[in-house]
Amino acid sequence: MKNACLIIIGNEILSGRTQDKNLAWLAVQLGECGTRLANAQIIPDVEEVIIKTVRHASEHYDVVFTTGGIGPTHDDITAASVARAFGVDLHLDPSAHATLLNHYGEKDLNEARLKMAYLPQGAVPIANPISAAPGFRIRNVYVFAGIPSVMQAMFANMRHELGSGPKIYSRSISAFVTEGVLAAGLADIQREFPEVEIGSYPFFQHGKLGTSIVMRAIDTTRLDLCFEKVHFFFSHTLEVACQENQ
Amino acid sequence: MKNACLIIIGNEILSGRTQDKNLAWLAVQLGECGTRLANAQIIPDVEEVIIKTVRHASEHYDVVFTTGGIGPTHDDITAASVARAFGVDLHLDPSAHATLLNHYGEKDLNEARLKMAYLPQGAVPIANPISAAPGFRIRNVYVFAGIPSVMQAMFANMRHELGSGPKIYSRSISAFVTEGVLAAGLADIQREFPEVEIGSYPFFQHGKLGTSIVMRAIDTTRLDLCFEKVHFFFSHTLEVACQENQ
Repeated sequence: MKNACLIIIGNEILSGRTQDKNLAWLAVQLGECGTRLANAQIIPDVEEVIIKTVRHASEHYDVVFTTGGIGPTHDDITAASVARAFGVDLHLDPSAHATLLNHYGEKDLNEARLKMAYLPQGAVPIANPISAAPGFRIRNVYVFAGIPSVMQAMFANMRHELGSGPKIYSRSISAFVTEGVLAAGLADIQREFPEVEIGSYPFFQHGKLGTSIVMRAIDTTRLDLCFEKVHFFFSHTLEVACQENQ
Repeated sequence: MKNACLIIIGNEILSGRTQDKNLAWLAVQLGECGTRLANAQIIPDVEEVIIKTVRHASEHYDVVFTTGGIGPTHDDITAASVARAFGVDLHLDPSAHATLLNHYGEKDLNEARLKMAYLPQGAVPIANPISAAPGFRIRNVYVFAGIPSVMQAMFANMRHELGSGPKIYSRSISAFVTEGVLAAGLADIQREFPEVEIGSYPFFQHGKLGTSIVMRAIDTTRLDLCFEKVHFFFSHTLEVACQENQ
């Protein structure tokens, strides 16, 4: 299975002003392509930090995505930083240039907008049907816009490049029963099903604590068997809890 | 100004099943204490990854927060991993033990729940008024629960330890005008106000592109002056756009 890393570039996320929505969306899409999101980092719009983070991620993960910082303004430094991460220069990409000319017309394609057609040497543009300025791929790094709708359109335009690994299936079960009551039994089931990743997630709703169990696996037969066990265990535990309350 | 790093521990975030809400909340709180969230990482429930990430963050940031993985189930490995990151053992913390005994009673304080009173040697518990099991601090690392309401309560119980650095103030302005029209003028204003961080954030709403400009600074006089400039520039640009449309 391929491992992916997402680098979210943006002071607006780190300041708490903007709630990131790209991670969860991308994670689900990657899961459907058989690629696992193994790590995500949120970093500021600082050139040295972007360079270091992109370089490290490119070396340690099969595929890397970045979001944010590819617009026309002074704080959009992703393309230049990614170029420096790989020791190449920016150049005016002819196809990106043509796309922007077509979108804005010669009169409105000012210097700031033209900046968005400068890609790292060797980068391949990724079409952006919403606002024309492309994303790009260089080596194993895909550089996307930060606006969710634009990011999603860019992903759609490169998704086929990921190929298809084994899909991960999941089943889940939730109830207002606390983790502490379930822990020992779940640990037993996890030992019996090492190929199923069993996650236990407490939640707090309507003033009550509850637990969601999420089971994830490639093998659906084992997943279903594991789910049956957990389901039986849940029902049994709830009965016990119920009887104790009588 | 202090720099903070947030480590979000949880397969459920990386799989896209759960939308993290802790980062944005914590970022705003830290900003009010004069601490800057400089980096955030989302990592899986894997011991070696937690150890490496916590150790690195503890060395490179003034203060580190982790969320997630401190419950009673088999996938809750944060406390043990943080202990290993600092080369210490887990031990039954007497005050955490007393709190859990008081909360559950002797009969219901089973082995799984008791696990939550095992903290790294040298760690100081952080009270959890919602579900009793404490967070803790060891050196410059604060270990919090993942459930937002519990995390927020733990933060409230340690917030005073952060002291108060200079607060960052912010002002912002938004309009349905594209970044490409604003970029050159904004770059000029940024050069005039190097002490103000001017961020430009495009958005896409109701089928139209727009831009939000966020100005952040410690010095409110300079911030207000910068805002006036940006506001004037925005109004002027919008007027021009309007005239061109006539």
